[in-house]
Amino acid sequence: MLNAEDNALITRVGPNTPMGEYLRRYWVPALLSEEVPTPDCPPVRVTILAETLIAFRDTEGRVGLVDNYCPHRRASLFFGRNEESGLRCVYHGWKFDATGACVDMPSEPAESNFKDKVRVTAYPCEERGGVVWAYMGPPDRQPELPNLAWAAVPDSHRFLSKCRQECNWLQALEGGIDSSHISFLHSSLKARDYAINASSRGLQDAALHDRSPRFFLEHADYGLVIGARRSTADGQYYWRITPWMLPYSTIVPAEPHAVMTGNMYVPADDETTLVFRASWHPLRPLTDAERHEYETGGVFHELVQPVTYRPYANKDNDYLQDREMQRTVNFSGIKGIQAQDMAVIESMGAISDRTREHLGTSDSAILGARRRLLREVANFQEGIEPEAPHNGDLYWVRSAAVEAPQSMPMLDVAEQYMAVEKSTLAKQSTT
Amino acid sequence: MLNAEDNALITRVGPNTPMGEYLRRYWVPALLSEEVPTPDCPPVRVTILAETLIAFRDTEGRVGLVDNYCPHRRASLFFGRNEESGLRCVYHGWKFDATGACVDMPSEPAESNFKDKVRVTAYPCEERGGVVWAYMGPPDRQPELPNLAWAAVPDSHRFLSKCRQECNWLQALEGGIDSSHISFLHSSLKARDYAINASSRGLQDAALHDRSPRFFLEHADYGLVIGARRSTADGQYYWRITPWMLPYSTIVPAEPHAVMTGNMYVPADDETTLVFRASWHPLRPLTDAERHEYETGGVFHELVQPVTYRPYANKDNDYLQDREMQRTVNFSGIKGIQAQDMAVIESMGAISDRTREHLGTSDSAILGARRRLLREVANFQEGIEPEAPHNGDLYWVRSAAVEAPQSMPMLDVAEQYMAVEKSTLAKQSTT
Amino acid sequence: MLNAEDNALITRVGPNTPMGEYLRRYWVPALLSEEVPTPDCPPVRVTILAETLIAFRDTEGRVGLVDNYCPHRRASLFFGRNEESGLRCVYHGWKFDATGACVDMPSEPAESNFKDKVRVTAYPCEERGGVVWAYMGPPDRQPELPNLAWAAVPDSHRFLSKCRQECNWLQALEGGIDSSHISFLHSSLKARDYAINASSRGLQDAALHDRSPRFFLEHADYGLVIGARRSTADGQYYWRITPWMLPYSTIVPAEPHAVMTGNMYVPADDETTLVFRASWHPLRPLTDAERHEYETGGVFHELVQPVTYRPYANKDNDYLQDREMQRTVNFSGIKGIQAQDMAVIESMGAISDRTREHLGTSDSAILGARRRLLREVANFQEGIEPEAPHNGDLYWVRSAAVEAPQSMPMLDVAEQYMAVEKSTLAKQSTT
Repeated sequence: MLNAEDNALITRVGPNTPMGEYLRRYWVPALLSEEVPTPDCPPVRVTILAETLIAFRDTEGRVGLVDNYCPHRRASLFFGRNEESGLRCVYHGWKFDATGACVDMPSEPAESNFKDKVRVTAYPCEERGGVVWAYMGPPDRQPELPNLAWAAVPDSHRFLSKCRQECNWLQALEGGIDSSHISFLHSSLKARDYAINASSRGLQDAALHDRSPRFFLEHADYGLVIGARRSTADGQYYWRITPWMLPYSTIVPAEPHAVMTGNMYVPADDETTLVFRASWHPLRPLTDAERHEYETGGVFHELVQPVTYRPYANKDNDYLQDREMQRTVNFSGIKGIQAQDMAVIESMGAISDRTREHLGTSDSAILGARRRLLREVANFQEGIEPEAPHNGDLYWVRSAAVEAPQSMPMLDVAEQYMAVEKSTLAKQSTT
Repeated sequence: MLNAEDNALITRVGPNTPMGEYLRRYWVPALLSEEVPTPDCPPVRVTILAETLIAFRDTEGRVGLVDNYCPHRRASLFFGRNEESGLRCVYHGWKFDATGACVDMPSEPAESNFKDKVRVTAYPCEERGGVVWAYMGPPDRQPELPNLAWAAVPDSHRFLSKCRQECNWLQALEGGIDSSHISFLHSSLKARDYAINASSRGLQDAALHDRSPRFFLEHADYGLVIGARRSTADGQYYWRITPWMLPYSTIVPAEPHAVMTGNMYVPADDETTLVFRASWHPLRPLTDAERHEYETGGVFHELVQPVTYRPYANKDNDYLQDREMQRTVNFSGIKGIQAQDMAVIESMGAISDRTREHLGTSDSAILGARRRLLREVANFQEGIEPEAPHNGDLYWVRSAAVEAPQSMPMLDVAEQYMAVEKSTLAKQSTT
Repeated sequence: MLNAEDNALITRVGPNTPMGEYLRRYWVPALLSEEVPTPDCPPVRVTILAETLIAFRDTEGRVGLVDNYCPHRRASLFFGRNEESGLRCVYHGWKFDATGACVDMPSEPAESNFKDKVRVTAYPCEERGGVVWAYMGPPDRQPELPNLAWAAVPDSHRFLSKCRQECNWLQALEGGIDSSHISFLHSSLKARDYAINASSRGLQDAALHDRSPRFFLEHADYGLVIGARRSTADGQYYWRITPWMLPYSTIVPAEPHAVMTGNMYVPADDETTLVFRASWHPLRPLTDAERHEYETGGVFHELVQPVTYRPYANKDNDYLQDREMQRTVNFSGIKGIQAQDMAVIESMGAISDRTREHLGTSDSAILGARRRLLREVANFQEGIEPEAPHNGDLYWVRSAAVEAPQSMPMLDVAEQYMAVEKSTLAKQSTT
């Protein structure tokens, strides 16, 4: 349902591609702060937007994100020494600070001023909400950090994880805004416990009662408001409303006062996505039980391997699908919402061939998101800069999952339930 | 001895290639029936003629063979639920029957007729002789199943195996019709036991006496009759006659009343071949000893790994070649006829560069087969449909391995010895 | 600092590339003699200059180096039988001697003269200094073997190793002539033991005192004389002089009377290098302690895996870098000079993108070597044959590492210290 050209246009993210440059107008989640936990700790490899980079935390605690290749002879700075406010290449000792300046070049004569002529590519970094954000676009276009609700709460209120998925970012994003698959992929086979994985009783009832939700889309300055409406047994509508915030943030629909989960589907390269996930409560610390569940691979957070962040359940082992479990316990035979999602989106191939899909009315959110992305990129190619990156407050929303009277239009539901709880910490200002 | 164009022409098997389309005029062995043993058992992945497919056995016992990709959003149907006469995608619950019809589309509104507009690619399947055959060509050209002798006997008379080879199908086929290598590749180093792997004393004597057999080819409606003639010590001729039945079936030369072995070298993709092998006796059940030998990786059947059907002896371990065995026991140092064959044909590369061969008189069977394939494809490209697929009875032949007087021409030998034993079960009619 | 065309020109080594053909004017180290230790031992696979070959030692002890593919049907000769003065293909028994002649063709009729029309590609081989050298160029251009000093000593005086590196040969060579990185990559963090890996006290002092050596280059008939000059604390110059002998031989700078180490960075293919290393003393056998150190992966010789010669410390395990060791013991956190070198040169990628380097004055040796290679290839493309391959005696030099008065020019230092010790065995004549 996309032609091949458009499919390539909105999936490719490397430097000098239209979508790649568009994405570089936003701050990008590059790594977890905990990956570079302390000053002068070992540097780590980071691949984002098809660029191979090295992240390090310097002596002052600032995070640097520099090109993998030392500009001298192109040895990897990964092996470098992180010491005294800079990263020093092990080959000839050239040293760069977090801004990319060459601050020492001991292999050259002291009188040489070659040091002042050499820089390594370095991207500005900010930390917020446990995530290191990078800005990889032109310096004169540097935007605000998005005021995401989960990033504003104290660390005690939030659990954060990162997970590698082996497919293009758009597949991952489309999975995140497709509210209709929860009635199937994530469902249980037991009647009173239809959606075992769903935390909400309202969802369980509605998903059981009405498996072909009707979709409503409204454009917002931050992206799209995506509502999936199901009839309920008692004559109401059950709404699940997902905010899709440009370019790749979503919040899973959640009932008022529930723990929420937000996702960011960040392109590592054209065929790999890093999903940053935050589960948080706006008003209270997470309980030990909640934290324990996330840490052990519960509902929204996947158990991943060290360094690579690849889940243990992956395509090489068919996501540990158990056919007997599929026959008797749940719809997919796969354990965990994330593994279920990964199984279907990775099985489409590295970049899904969207010319061969057959989309129905229940896919209108996906169609709407693609149209929006195509419009964003078309505008951008005509020189119209995106506005959302320069207005971080646009991101100050939450999702909704509520029952409402049939007479209430979606925008009223959205207005009533998508405001972030008032008692949350005052949102932080950018930069 | 083939130019690069012809080599590409007869080795490439994907959709819309000339050879690929020609091969799609025949029923294709797609999998063993035992891979989908029971109604509603788990679906399995099948790659045939460079198409990625999913096979399943439905509630009524029919085998379905459908596209890997669900036509909705292109999730793999491999993860699907095989239930109530159809395969249901785990993503949004779309369900397809063995004919490819969409029989349920629960994610769409009940009033929607979108279900009736969507199909998944599905190929007709038939089971015979323990094999699931598929027809992947245009529906109006659907042919007869070939009346292969081994497929007509009761299951008790037959042992069946499947084995993955990591090279193009033509290399595998050429190995199967090359009767001259048995004097070398498959030979023993012990004088009275020259061809340890050969079951026949006549072969042992003749292969020892005359290692440069003369080849005789005769065209048949089903393909080629390939005779290799060796002089014997007592002034007779020892004939080994292989029927090559279009497009990839052969029968190993065997003496009258012996157990026979037939091979089908089925292209999985351009660089992978699935060899389906049947050892059978036309008149009696196989003995426990015979069956035990095949099951444990004896003369003609290879021990393979589960799911992939890759042999344990493979190119990654140099086919377990033992140089001391090669010095003292057999010619190759490799155990088992199939592993010996695989070592040489896979070592030619994924697709052998036939522009750089040097073929002699002992390669005339291979030359003849290539010429026949080129002619078949040339005719096909001119719109002349192959006739063999529409006459299953042509395949009702066996091989021969006999001593005969020097005065007897090959065709007389063939006529006398290549008829299938009369007391075999009445051959089955097609479809 | 090279444009993309020049970078491709001097890195690509396959048949019919300019550099590939230039390199084929020299004898190439193809394998260690010990890989084919005895007459009629098993053949081994050898990839050199992007050609896949099979080496064997025949009954008379001669080494043959032939094409991997049997010219008949292109089965690999690796599986062949090495017997009675030739290598026999296991497929149909064709047999080739070390010159490439087909000496038996038993699958063809005795009266056939097809045997005389078929040859396998075979390259002349010579053994010297424990290495099998091959000549892969046109027969009428066959040169002399280089009179390398380490190859002339008795085996007792020499330790030889071979090691696979996963990058282009030029990266490996450039590492070998880059004398400035020893002050960093190979340095220790302890003051009095700055260069723990360096055997020489002079180096330790000088590398500590002056980390930006000045480079001096002089062209020689055999290649380049590369001098790195450092100031010493006592007002002298400390010289490290490396001879780079065309096309890929170097000798690590060593003090008079010390054990020396020579390297040959031989292109296996465009993205793989085989480093042949010899440590030798010109005047005496190596001691048990020295030999033990090399055998267990000491200073210059790496512990490698059998058959592949890939080091145990490799890019898949980040060369076993230990960040705590890097913090407290040595500059790189990697154990062993070779692993340190591999870490940096392999991390540049399979073929370094030299268009994006920033070279300083300390890189003048590398710049000089590239210019020389470009000139050699340019001359060669204009029909001017290289002369060095035809004058083996040019290679009769050693390296130097000495302190000398500031008034002494490099060429005087070179003349005084780079002559091979007189009492060395009389150098061998070529062929």
